[in-house]
Amino acid sequence: MITTPTLLLNEQKCRRNIRNMAEKAKRNNVTLRPHFKTHQSHEIGRWFREEGTEKITVSSLRMAKYFAADGWKDILVAFPVNILEIETINQLAGKIHLSLLVESAEAVRFLQVNLKSPVDIYIKVDAGLHRTGVSWDDHKSICEILRSLSESRATTFRGFVTHSGHSYRARSKNESSAIHNESITRMLSLKNKFLHEYPGLIISVGDTPGCSIMEDFSMVDELRPGNYVFYDVTQYIIGSCKADQIAVAMACPVVAVHRERSEVVIYGGSVHFASDSVVDENGITIYGKVVSNHGNGWGEIIEESYLRKLSQEHGIVYLPDNFIDDYKPGDIIKILPVHSCTTANLMKGYLTTEGQKISTMQIYP
Amino acid sequence: MITTPTLLLNEQKCRRNIRNMAEKAKRNNVTLRPHFKTHQSHEIGRWFREEGTEKITVSSLRMAKYFAADGWKDILVAFPVNILEIETINQLAGKIHLSLLVESAEAVRFLQVNLKSPVDIYIKVDAGLHRTGVSWDDHKSICEILRSLSESRATTFRGFVTHSGHSYRARSKNESSAIHNESITRMLSLKNKFLHEYPGLIISVGDTPGCSIMEDFSMVDELRPGNYVFYDVTQYIIGSCKADQIAVAMACPVVAVHRERSEVVIYGGSVHFASDSVVDENGITIYGKVVSNHGNGWGEIIEESYLRKLSQEHGIVYLPDNFIDDYKPGDIIKILPVHSCTTANLMKGYLTTEGQKISTMQIYP
Repeated sequence: MITTPTLLLNEQKCRRNIRNMAEKAKRNNVTLRPHFKTHQSHEIGRWFREEGTEKITVSSLRMAKYFAADGWKDILVAFPVNILEIETINQLAGKIHLSLLVESAEAVRFLQVNLKSPVDIYIKVDAGLHRTGVSWDDHKSICEILRSLSESRATTFRGFVTHSGHSYRARSKNESSAIHNESITRMLSLKNKFLHEYPGLIISVGDTPGCSIMEDFSMVDELRPGNYVFYDVTQYIIGSCKADQIAVAMACPVVAVHRERSEVVIYGGSVHFASDSVVDENGITIYGKVVSNHGNGWGEIIEESYLRKLSQEHGIVYLPDNFIDDYKPGDIIKILPVHSCTTANLMKGYLTTEGQKISTMQIYP
Repeated sequence: MITTPTLLLNEQKCRRNIRNMAEKAKRNNVTLRPHFKTHQSHEIGRWFREEGTEKITVSSLRMAKYFAADGWKDILVAFPVNILEIETINQLAGKIHLSLLVESAEAVRFLQVNLKSPVDIYIKVDAGLHRTGVSWDDHKSICEILRSLSESRATTFRGFVTHSGHSYRARSKNESSAIHNESITRMLSLKNKFLHEYPGLIISVGDTPGCSIMEDFSMVDELRPGNYVFYDVTQYIIGSCKADQIAVAMACPVVAVHRERSEVVIYGGSVHFASDSVVDENGITIYGKVVSNHGNGWGEIIEESYLRKLSQEHGIVYLPDNFIDDYKPGDIIKILPVHSCTTANLMKGYLTTEGQKISTMQIYP
């Protein structure tokens, strides 16, 4: 019985999401290196393995250690290398095939001096997001990094990586496709420039909107989407998934009903959902969408209903008149999260709609 | 040595914050029942005990269990009672002096039937925040709850509780005081109405801005602030603390420098800081303020520098020209959080500037 905020997982939808992307990658003859930061779970990782996944992406060395402990042997840490963690890097590089991102020659020179086992290196490229990475057209800096790599024994240059996270700002499939295509064009220009010198180099791209909406990936070598394992309300609003592909929902106890302002108060706040919000189709800032109760799982989105506000442990849900009487204190209300990655990161565990508990990487020791 | 995002705690500042509020409550002859959701730590809880605190506030039954395990005997769960957790309520009520909040007669009737040990009950009053609670002027509903309480053996009515969280929207001491005074006036009107019937009833208020800024609390019976244990950038901008009262700072590795756009990239994202933001004095939305490095601790705020953006593990820090050259990959940058409660909740542990590790309540089992 659910008595406190609980993250429900529909295993069937989740496995279908995993399979669809694996098949799309196969059709396009590109490597799929899914990002595991969304689910952070050994158990769910194994569902990818069943679909043929052998290479994975993570966002921290801690996460790399967690997945290495479950037998993953080929891990890319998709984050500019944190040289302060050289000890962890050496521990991992001695055991698995570890790939790191660099965006400066200084980082390469540090690795050259301090690495005890070989690692693969990708150059982190900024293809338009402007978060970090070397700009795709800054050939001078790229050549400098390549030069330092050629002088380093423990590192092998493998290619260029980018993340077009600005596709999350898209609010239509067309916008999202345009961003994706622009990134790929820029990455291809890099590949063409350096391919003669580095014949095996690959380009690796990865964002769930692009990888979900596009069908033709024949131009790239590797895809690294992550969020598609669950999807969420943001992806639904962008158009990268249908509502029935969203594989997680929060189940929260109702603790108060304020009929006069069409609100119910739930036990479920920013320490459960995270504080991510999105502007919905009606221009309203929302923190989640309400779905109907359906046994241990959930049904359709209740249109016009949404998670309106969050404080630390409280959530305020707006429900129109024809739905508000369906809920009283002691009931469970189910809500699709705006951002499944951060919700899963906070909840640190899932309850499947079949009743199985699934754990995740735990927090700092 | 710090190699990953770490939440630093200055014990001396923290103890001073705890002491200042304890002394203010003593001067006003009111009970201080501090909210422990901010620090969530046995160790820090003991620092309150050293200043004479015996009664505490928490935001969940799970947190009540955690602090009961460290010897706290008088705990108020400041959240509309979640009747689904009746088993935990009965476990706790058998061991400690437990106080619960109700805002409906239905909840009281449920408790009457299901409680196995006595609990104290406060009515949750909405004195202006409009998050939840019975409106302060809805005497009909309040009388109905009081009637149901008079019929229930296991419950004892103790008084009225409110939280004026809208004081967080204030952007000056005057605004904050006005909100605080309005709440207290409304709570006093309730007390005056029901005091003849319930001679011992108390009114309990609590929000850090109000409790920090005001000096005269002689009209109320109990104060429940929480955030003041650490304070944060939001409190600093509201005017409820000075910069040198902020007792926590995040220490984050620098992983990239983008001089051309005055940004450094840090290992430290929304899974570390949480996604809370605040609009600063210059109208800019910020996620934290940079402070100077100072041994194992930190110094002054670096004006014009701020945490500009967060993704899951990355943070983007803006640093003006005269500071950007002070940082290179492999350095540690220190940042005051916008909301210390949610940052501490994510980090699940502190490193004091004296080098001691302090743990907190751990996550869902």
